[in-house]
Amino acid sequence: MKKIINQPEHVVDEMLKGLVFMHQDVIERIDGFEVIVRKAEKTGKVGIISGGGSGHEPSHAGFVGKGMLSAAVCGAVFTSPTPDQILEAIKAADEGAGVFMVIKNYSGDIMNFEMAQELAEMEGIEVASVVVDDDIAVENSLYTQGRRGVAGTILVHKILGHAAETGKSLAEIKELADRLVPQIKTIGLALSGATVPEVGKPGFVLEEDEFEYGVGIHGEPGYKKEKLQPSAKLAEELVEKLAEGFDIQDGEHYGVLINGLGATPLMEQYVFANDVAQLLAKKGVIVDYKKIGNYMTSIDMAGLSLTLIKLEDPSWIDALQAPVEVVAW
Amino acid sequence: MKKIINQPEHVVDEMLKGLVFMHQDVIERIDGFEVIVRKAEKTGKVGIISGGGSGHEPSHAGFVGKGMLSAAVCGAVFTSPTPDQILEAIKAADEGAGVFMVIKNYSGDIMNFEMAQELAEMEGIEVASVVVDDDIAVENSLYTQGRRGVAGTILVHKILGHAAETGKSLAEIKELADRLVPQIKTIGLALSGATVPEVGKPGFVLEEDEFEYGVGIHGEPGYKKEKLQPSAKLAEELVEKLAEGFDIQDGEHYGVLINGLGATPLMEQYVFANDVAQLLAKKGVIVDYKKIGNYMTSIDMAGLSLTLIKLEDPSWIDALQAPVEVVAW
Repeated sequence: MKKIINQPEHVVDEMLKGLVFMHQDVIERIDGFEVIVRKAEKTGKVGIISGGGSGHEPSHAGFVGKGMLSAAVCGAVFTSPTPDQILEAIKAADEGAGVFMVIKNYSGDIMNFEMAQELAEMEGIEVASVVVDDDIAVENSLYTQGRRGVAGTILVHKILGHAAETGKSLAEIKELADRLVPQIKTIGLALSGATVPEVGKPGFVLEEDEFEYGVGIHGEPGYKKEKLQPSAKLAEELVEKLAEGFDIQDGEHYGVLINGLGATPLMEQYVFANDVAQLLAKKGVIVDYKKIGNYMTSIDMAGLSLTLIKLEDPSWIDALQAPVEVVAW
Repeated sequence: MKKIINQPEHVVDEMLKGLVFMHQDVIERIDGFEVIVRKAEKTGKVGIISGGGSGHEPSHAGFVGKGMLSAAVCGAVFTSPTPDQILEAIKAADEGAGVFMVIKNYSGDIMNFEMAQELAEMEGIEVASVVVDDDIAVENSLYTQGRRGVAGTILVHKILGHAAETGKSLAEIKELADRLVPQIKTIGLALSGATVPEVGKPGFVLEEDEFEYGVGIHGEPGYKKEKLQPSAKLAEELVEKLAEGFDIQDGEHYGVLINGLGATPLMEQYVFANDVAQLLAKKGVIVDYKKIGNYMTSIDMAGLSLTLIKLEDPSWIDALQAPVEVVAW
């Protein structure tokens, strides 16, 4: 394992210390917890929280700040955070109007977030949640019943964060979340596995000329391994899967998120973006929003994912474009 | 070579097309050239341009926009752009007050930017420039007389871009640049080589447990290869070299830039940041500005660099913090 770290078991703690050092104008850490909260003034609005295992940086702590998340819980690498950590995030995010939890669809996350919700409710905090399951690659997976939650989650953070910032109630945010999540779909591909520091070797190994469609952000198996192909072919497969998933029609409005998984340089992401642009144009898709970069990574995995959000509600474009004060949007 | 690309010889063209598709609100490409210009309204100010070989994304096109660069010239991968391309950038950036060129210290870049300057002056455009040579790892190198220009260059873009935005004259910007560049020093380390698409294999190979201090952003040789060490040891070496370079004294004010070289995840960058923070604190350094992420990459190289800027002029902090409308700051 070749990594710039110290003791593997200290990676999350040291990473959070580094994060707070670099961005202490925007975020802080709750003493004794792996919870990052924003420094913005409390104004009595709904708090949005998210989190999960670490290893997906800048998710989720990079989205903590005014206009997005109130707090992020950072579990051990690829490991659900414990209920006591999540409870701490809920308590920190509560400004009196309740707390909304954005949970990626992994069994451990759901169990622990729900347990934290019960604990918070016993303390008189109103809590609601949504489960994001945007990955259309496979049904059921390691750690997951149904579809996995992946890069599309950051669009949920952004749109719900904007709703909270504009003063929407917990019930309104819940209603919005339930309309929003089904309109976000993602599919990815991997050129290499990710190495969890405490494991010390990649979660899976691909041949030198091989890649895999549909790998999860913890290295969960995908749906097809093939010999490496040109970017245009990769884009075609991913766009076709998404087109089927949405039953895309000529003239519909979408947003596009191209997400690097950690080790894939922007050079490749932009080449891929060019291929995606042409394929979407051929389908008559109108692209009203675009985002590219490393947002929901899988440590040092090489590969990328493509997310489409169907902009059924035109106000979602404004929500995506609204300025925020966070580290990584 | 495992990359998400099409024909290696089309990488730069397709990457720029993808870039323009994703960010057409901020930037556009000059037809028939590898030059990215900003869409912001022309207001008669000095234009700042930069550029060089491609492969350092988001440098330099990601810094084109209001408050930073007026244009970026994108050569072939790791290859200086030609004078005709640079001339086109100068012409596009000229709003009547002259154009200032930020050149990284590579012999080919200097020759070609100077040739373009002569051509532009023959067309009546006033041009001035600065050569950035922030890499203190080695004296002279492949492609370079003296020290190489690396990640510190983006701080020059930002501070000079702010000066131009606030209406400074070409002569004032030249004076500022000449004061600024000596106050920026960088040193890096690599865990792996970068693969130029048209070459198809890494520029250099390190053993599985080996890394190299002082490697350049085109894979130029560094000054020492060693067995991989903990992040804290790596940070100590880099901080000590910079402390010597600046002759750092207790109580001095600096800005810190931690720059990922392309394949190094944020997890590692933040762990390293935590180590740097402690070492700088021990030296009594006051850190007034911090930035972390992939800004001046070397395609898919694993590794990072550490830049310090001595904030001799406190107004540089405001310049670094001023909002900009660019893709990647």
